[in-house]
Amino acid sequence: MVQAVHRAIHVLRELATATPRLGVTELADRIGVAKPTAHALLRTLEAEGLVVQDRESGKYQLGPGLVTLGNAYLDSHELRTRAATWADRLATQADAAVWTGILTDGHVLVVHHAFRPGGAMQVLETGASLPWNACALGKAIAAFLPAERRTALLTGELPRVTGSSLDDPAELQAQLDRVRETGYAVDENELTLGDAGIAAPVFDRTGEVVGGLGLVGPIERLLAENARQEHAISVREVARSLSRDLGAPRNAGLRACN
Amino acid sequence: MVQAVHRAIHVLRELATATPRLGVTELADRIGVAKPTAHALLRTLEAEGLVVQDRESGKYQLGPGLVTLGNAYLDSHELRTRAATWADRLATQADAAVWTGILTDGHVLVVHHAFRPGGAMQVLETGASLPWNACALGKAIAAFLPAERRTALLTGELPRVTGSSLDDPAELQAQLDRVRETGYAVDENELTLGDAGIAAPVFDRTGEVVGGLGLVGPIERLLAENARQEHAISVREVARSLSRDLGAPRNAGLRACN
Repeated sequence: MVQAVHRAIHVLRELATATPRLGVTELADRIGVAKPTAHALLRTLEAEGLVVQDRESGKYQLGPGLVTLGNAYLDSHELRTRAATWADRLATQADAAVWTGILTDGHVLVVHHAFRPGGAMQVLETGASLPWNACALGKAIAAFLPAERRTALLTGELPRVTGSSLDDPAELQAQLDRVRETGYAVDENELTLGDAGIAAPVFDRTGEVVGGLGLVGPIERLLAENARQEHAISVREVARSLSRDLGAPRNAGLRACN
Repeated sequence: MVQAVHRAIHVLRELATATPRLGVTELADRIGVAKPTAHALLRTLEAEGLVVQDRESGKYQLGPGLVTLGNAYLDSHELRTRAATWADRLATQADAAVWTGILTDGHVLVVHHAFRPGGAMQVLETGASLPWNACALGKAIAAFLPAERRTALLTGELPRVTGSSLDDPAELQAQLDRVRETGYAVDENELTLGDAGIAAPVFDRTGEVVGGLGLVGPIERLLAENARQEHAISVREVARSLSRDLGAPRNAGLRACN
């Protein structure tokens, strides 16, 4: 562990949660270092464009270099690259938005968002970070994780985003068991009031779950009695095709949960 | 300058340009350190989620933590936050895509992208990094920079993206002089074959140019004889409203170029 690097990243994380900016003294307090140390870290991060100093106040905020690096990550992500074609096809077929996500740190990071074709005002969700327990994507991924990682998730933080978000480990555990049987997960009102999600897991060539892909849209459209099953079948099929595209063995789902 | 932090960022930049991954030895060579040093840096970055090690090959690639930080930057960016409403309005009015960007390191970083309403397949350009000399946004911003920063841009790298991109400092200088008179900049075929851009500068409360906002679309639509002037007027007006929204003084444009 390189302490200076660890501290520099701590600085970035503090700035990421600060609104809108932090001064050197405040930052030194938050990361528990002397002011000259904080100052040296900030100057280095600033020279690299990861931090910017406000001319008026002298305070610091995150810098544009982080967007460049974040985009390089997204561009290099094989799941995202391969998901694009499949997601667009599914969005057209189902007439709904399609999110592709990975699990990181108990959260689903949306790495790709295909808009609902011709839809009204839509906010791009790429880069959004969602509690795993509150969305279909998170549940679809969690269900196929190795048992010890699944247990870690269930015994970790289970934040509620809406009144319908599940925060009871036993109830979630039961849902995950069902997801392993049906091959897809559903959320209803759990992430966004009025919205539902239907998602399935994606596997890579090692046979491990690497992410998920799913539909997101109004409950009335996504979970209507005649639509729900059709949507679930499409999502599962597209996730399976994407997995095969990533080199996953045919029995990946089965292998992953044993 | 904290050397370890500088090196860690160097590691991230190398990984950002590598396809798809780099091993420890390769990385140590590229940043000019001993292998154990590179390894310590990588372990630290990995523990923080900024780097991920591929299980199969043992090689390293960028990690999802960078997207979270990049998004925190975008969300905290006042220009982006305030631009959203104005950009959507302009996109509807002009029936074209609207990009908002800032200048960083000789490049325009697109911080917001409002899609053309109801348009066909569009690729989101948020996070894209464009040579300043090849796009209307870059020229609109450069024209209103303090003279010494403008000169630095003109004597720096002027990459060509298409056959029409301008790489002659004198020609660019003349264009920038014109932009300061008309209040808007145009590119035609210079960034993307077939596409044009019309952009105007945005100023903040200090009266300095902080970015630009502009239309992007097919030349036939954007620069048609009867459309070009109307579009230019709309872009300039919206950029001015956005500037006022950011607290810019009325005479910001005038002040900035003196």
